[in-house]
Amino acid sequence: MYDYHCTTVKPGRLFGLGVGPGDPELITVKALRRLRESQVIAYYAGPHKHGNALTSVESWLRDDQQRLALIYPVTGRPPPPPFDYEATMRAFYDACAERVAEQLGAGRDVAALCEGDPLFYGSFMYLHDRLAERFETEVVPGVCSVVASASVLQTPLVYRDQTFLVLAGTLPEAELERLLAETQAAAIMKLGSNFEKVRRVLLRLGLAERARYVERATMADEQIRALAEVDPARVPYFSMILVPGERWRGESISDAD
Amino acid sequence: MYDYHCTTVKPGRLFGLGVGPGDPELITVKALRRLRESQVIAYYAGPHKHGNALTSVESWLRDDQQRLALIYPVTGRPPPPPFDYEATMRAFYDACAERVAEQLGAGRDVAALCEGDPLFYGSFMYLHDRLAERFETEVVPGVCSVVASASVLQTPLVYRDQTFLVLAGTLPEAELERLLAETQAAAIMKLGSNFEKVRRVLLRLGLAERARYVERATMADEQIRALAEVDPARVPYFSMILVPGERWRGESISDAD
Ligand SMILES: C[S@@+](CC[C@H](N)C(=O)[O-])C[C@H]1O[C@@H](n2cnc3c(N)ncnc32)[C@H](O)[C@@H]1O
Ligand SMILES: C[S@@+](CC[C@H](N)C(=O)[O-])C[C@H]1O[C@@H](n2cnc3c(N)ncnc32)[C@H](O)[C@@H]1O
Repeated sequence: MYDYHCTTVKPGRLFGLGVGPGDPELITVKALRRLRESQVIAYYAGPHKHGNALTSVESWLRDDQQRLALIYPVTGRPPPPPFDYEATMRAFYDACAERVAEQLGAGRDVAALCEGDPLFYGSFMYLHDRLAERFETEVVPGVCSVVASASVLQTPLVYRDQTFLVLAGTLPEAELERLLAETQAAAIMKLGSNFEKVRRVLLRLGLAERARYVERATMADEQIRALAEVDPARVPYFSMILVPGERWRGESISDAD
Repeated sequence: MYDYHCTTVKPGRLFGLGVGPGDPELITVKALRRLRESQVIAYYAGPHKHGNALTSVESWLRDDQQRLALIYPVTGRPPPPPFDYEATMRAFYDACAERVAEQLGAGRDVAALCEGDPLFYGSFMYLHDRLAERFETEVVPGVCSVVASASVLQTPLVYRDQTFLVLAGTLPEAELERLLAETQAAAIMKLGSNFEKVRRVLLRLGLAERARYVERATMADEQIRALAEVDPARVPYFSMILVPGERWRGESISDAD
């Protein structure tokens, strides 16, 4: 009886939806349409937390849409060995994929929410890697936190042929310094407890003046601060430093001398 | 009389609107709201062209909204010296800013359209640099072409702490090679006549297999091709190569050996 049901039901569609950086209005018209079509809303959240992606779409949801919470087993700094962080996360993503697959198998469309864009450092990628070949999958791109931060800081980010580097504040200090010395513009994500290290590097490279800091860009409690004013003990995970490219003034060769 | 009018009219607001990569539904709810509030719609376009940004919002516009076309004096490869490309472009952007300022000064809200995101290699930046201090300005971020291309190519772009580099295909070959050798994931924009050079570099670095090509992502005539299948003579400006980061499989240390 159960088998019969399983073999005839048309599987649901998996939508990986970029919901944007926080402001509910920064969702796209397309993601909003897919969100409303979905019977199940899957979202990641920290233990005892609401989840930023869910928060930013909540005003668009109906009560009859089922919520499927995917609760991270670890957040923040992973516990020391023998705790195996990588294996724990892999098992977590495997389990998430199975929970989502169960809904899809039962014929329900699932909207997997993702802050910013789903394929740009997003946890949706782990569902995509596990499910996109098994189920009809559509990814709706979103406004990523990098360009959202630039809009909030009101700073043009990259001009013309400048190189633009995105990196994680979790990298070792020497590596950060080497990479930032080479690029013409940059975004440094995943700050939190890495903030002080990143600020030191920017100071040494003479980039601290040009760099701009924002936390929780476009969210209700957004904060903008000069680098010198930031308290390193209170930097949240949802924060970013931008180093905008040098402004292009269109100097012709004769002007430049 | 004229002066009196000028000093009492409340100036309009300048909206820099990211309209997304091409698909009209990839505009955000917020940009759509600002678009509808604006009396004047300013957009860049090539000579005798319609402009991609205008095309992607056309279905959302009303007839009573005034169009203000900003027509590039040069597109494609600039003419050789003594033609001064930099000075020509600077004068063009100065003139664009004055035309927009005139509308704002007359009390009209102006939506300046920008493909993708306005502050990410967008021509809106040149209006922003010239007008943001003179007029009330709001930038609404958009879905940039990089993440839109990833969604169309259905490929996760960057995992965890990988570095991600955005660069222009216009850079010299040696520079492209040096930069691409160092990064873990990349997007190469502004291809057009630079395609063959970029492909050579990717082949030499052993990245050609991992790299993916798309033109006019999310537009009506979008094309996806393997790098080897691309005809270098027919690569448009609106195209991109992505080199996605290596997939993260969550190997624990004991698995990795
Ligand atoms: C796992 S990545 C997710 C990126 C996301 N998929 C995107 O497209 O922006 C998390 C990092 O994104 C950045 N971030 C996300 N939302 C942000 C916001 N509203 N303001 C500032 N930074 C944000 C922070 O640097 C954070 O450490
Ligand atoms: C001047 S930049 C503008 C970037 C834009 N502001 C953004 O946020 O994506 C132009 C380059 O963007 C890329 N591009 C823009 N739209 C695209 C699309 N729909 N498909 C592929 N590439 C695109 C191409 O590489 C093109 O050369």
